[in-house]
Amino acid sequence: MTPLIDGLQYANWSEKIFRQMRAGGVDAVHVTITYHETFRETVLQIEKWNRWFERFPDLIFQGFSADDIRLARETGRTAIFFGSQNPSCIEDDIGLVEVLHRLGLRFMQLTYNNQSLLATGCYEAGDGGLTRMGREVVAEMNRVGMVVDMSHSGERSTLEAIAHSTRPIAITHANPASWHKALRNKSDTVLRALAESGGMLGFSVYPHHLQGGSACTLESFCTMIARTAGQMGIDRIGIGTDLCQDQPDSVVEWMRVGRWTRKIDYGEGSAAAPGFPPMPEWFHDNRDFGRIAGGLKAAGLSDADIAAVMGGNWMRFMADSFGPAKG
Amino acid sequence: MTPLIDGLQYANWSEKIFRQMRAGGVDAVHVTITYHETFRETVLQIEKWNRWFERFPDLIFQGFSADDIRLARETGRTAIFFGSQNPSCIEDDIGLVEVLHRLGLRFMQLTYNNQSLLATGCYEAGDGGLTRMGREVVAEMNRVGMVVDMSHSGERSTLEAIAHSTRPIAITHANPASWHKALRNKSDTVLRALAESGGMLGFSVYPHHLQGGSACTLESFCTMIARTAGQMGIDRIGIGTDLCQDQPDSVVEWMRVGRWTRKIDYGEGSAAAPGFPPMPEWFHDNRDFGRIAGGLKAAGLSDADIAAVMGGNWMRFMADSFGPAKG
Repeated sequence: MTPLIDGLQYANWSEKIFRQMRAGGVDAVHVTITYHETFRETVLQIEKWNRWFERFPDLIFQGFSADDIRLARETGRTAIFFGSQNPSCIEDDIGLVEVLHRLGLRFMQLTYNNQSLLATGCYEAGDGGLTRMGREVVAEMNRVGMVVDMSHSGERSTLEAIAHSTRPIAITHANPASWHKALRNKSDTVLRALAESGGMLGFSVYPHHLQGGSACTLESFCTMIARTAGQMGIDRIGIGTDLCQDQPDSVVEWMRVGRWTRKIDYGEGSAAAPGFPPMPEWFHDNRDFGRIAGGLKAAGLSDADIAAVMGGNWMRFMADSFGPAKG
Repeated sequence: MTPLIDGLQYANWSEKIFRQMRAGGVDAVHVTITYHETFRETVLQIEKWNRWFERFPDLIFQGFSADDIRLARETGRTAIFFGSQNPSCIEDDIGLVEVLHRLGLRFMQLTYNNQSLLATGCYEAGDGGLTRMGREVVAEMNRVGMVVDMSHSGERSTLEAIAHSTRPIAITHANPASWHKALRNKSDTVLRALAESGGMLGFSVYPHHLQGGSACTLESFCTMIARTAGQMGIDRIGIGTDLCQDQPDSVVEWMRVGRWTRKIDYGEGSAAAPGFPPMPEWFHDNRDFGRIAGGLKAAGLSDADIAAVMGGNWMRFMADSFGPAKG
């Protein structure tokens, strides 16, 4: 049986959420452990996860390789794979890529909205593309087996990352801009280059990425997935909910503002709606993946294709991506 | 009498060099205390300087305002002003601008050759201009009185910094590209914008910035200065030697490579000539400023203009730049 895998979550983790993962039959989740945190601050986040793994060994454990997804299925638990949404965790030090990979970091975004040392974020006015350090770090990520994630990057940087990376990259949580125009969603040009290079797109249910926002229907979402399957190929797509369950609004402010500005930046929100937006009525937590699978059935996908989208594709991609590059 | 001021040095500091500053009658020097160092590592550099100030109180002291240049002249010492050649010292934290200004940092380059969080360096292939954080940090530097230095930045970033900054900026150590084409030298477009905004250019004697390199003649250098005075205005120019006296070649490797690459990057050098280049025969240390003044006389500058170039202009610029913005 094909596993159920979510390509991105950043919840306010708790026993309740871990139990919902089990209730929903979720076999593996790529969780964001760090945004703007330095290396040392990122290690503190890993320490927090170590305490959760210790407290809830019957529910979750840390995943290091795709084999751990099989182990998760066999033992009725959820494998948790670490990722970063900004390269702050490697600071200015390429040597930290290997160190963080050893600690379990399996995905790293080259940018989070703003310019980083590696590439340009999707909220910048200008995009100079992959930087000198960016090219070196992508090569190092390729070497050790850390996935380049361009979910929050600008167009030129994303295309250059796809071209420069010797291994397929991922956009773990975003939707096609042709369905819903947003700085965070991706152009057809990017989706084509991603698909042709063997990369993966994870569809997001974060309301700012949805057509109609929080009012988006399951039918609209699943019709878009079916259309994108036709465009990118059924093997190139998965789910990456961007579930930010139970987070207080102070967290979205940290995500947007970090330490880079003295003013408030509202990102995808606005002064009138600065917090997390309400979720669509058909997806609230880890127990709702069955609804998406049902929606895909209604949109005309075969059972095999639904299994591929709900986890089979991520499983194959992770098996190909998390180990060292083959010589 | 007008003071003698050098707009940039990064020597392997020693009693010998401090005594040469006195022998050369140098009243103030902007010294680089940090490149790729984090905030904490930068503070370690400040601690080193505190020990030098303690050991050689008759030769040097830390300058905080332009009044300290007058004090230096009156007491026969050299005022040392701190600067950074990369924004690594503020890491990702805009609040560190005010903290470092309080510790005496008076200049900060927005980039050193590569992309930073703030702007693009002159060695990058693409230049996206001043970033979102860059705009915020320039405003904060303007507020507290820290000079924006674009010596190692790309063309677009430099022009955007000049336009965005509400106070004049500096290019403390570079020469016109029309005289010697090099990634580090500046176009006529940049020099015009810098001059029109009230900014300052410091002429470098670092061989890679000189026409003919180490073989550059004093006459060629001073003729270039006279021509640039005609182009930018006599008030907009000074000296910024980029003197790297007594540094081992391991230091230029740190400057170029930092922690961003696993390969060696030769910057302005090459695999055949990886180290510091030999200085031109007419400038070896702080006792040689008189030769430049003599060369300017031979190039036809008046005594008043020579005094302006050798320190008067930096004095005025520093008086206008090192305090908080006027309300």
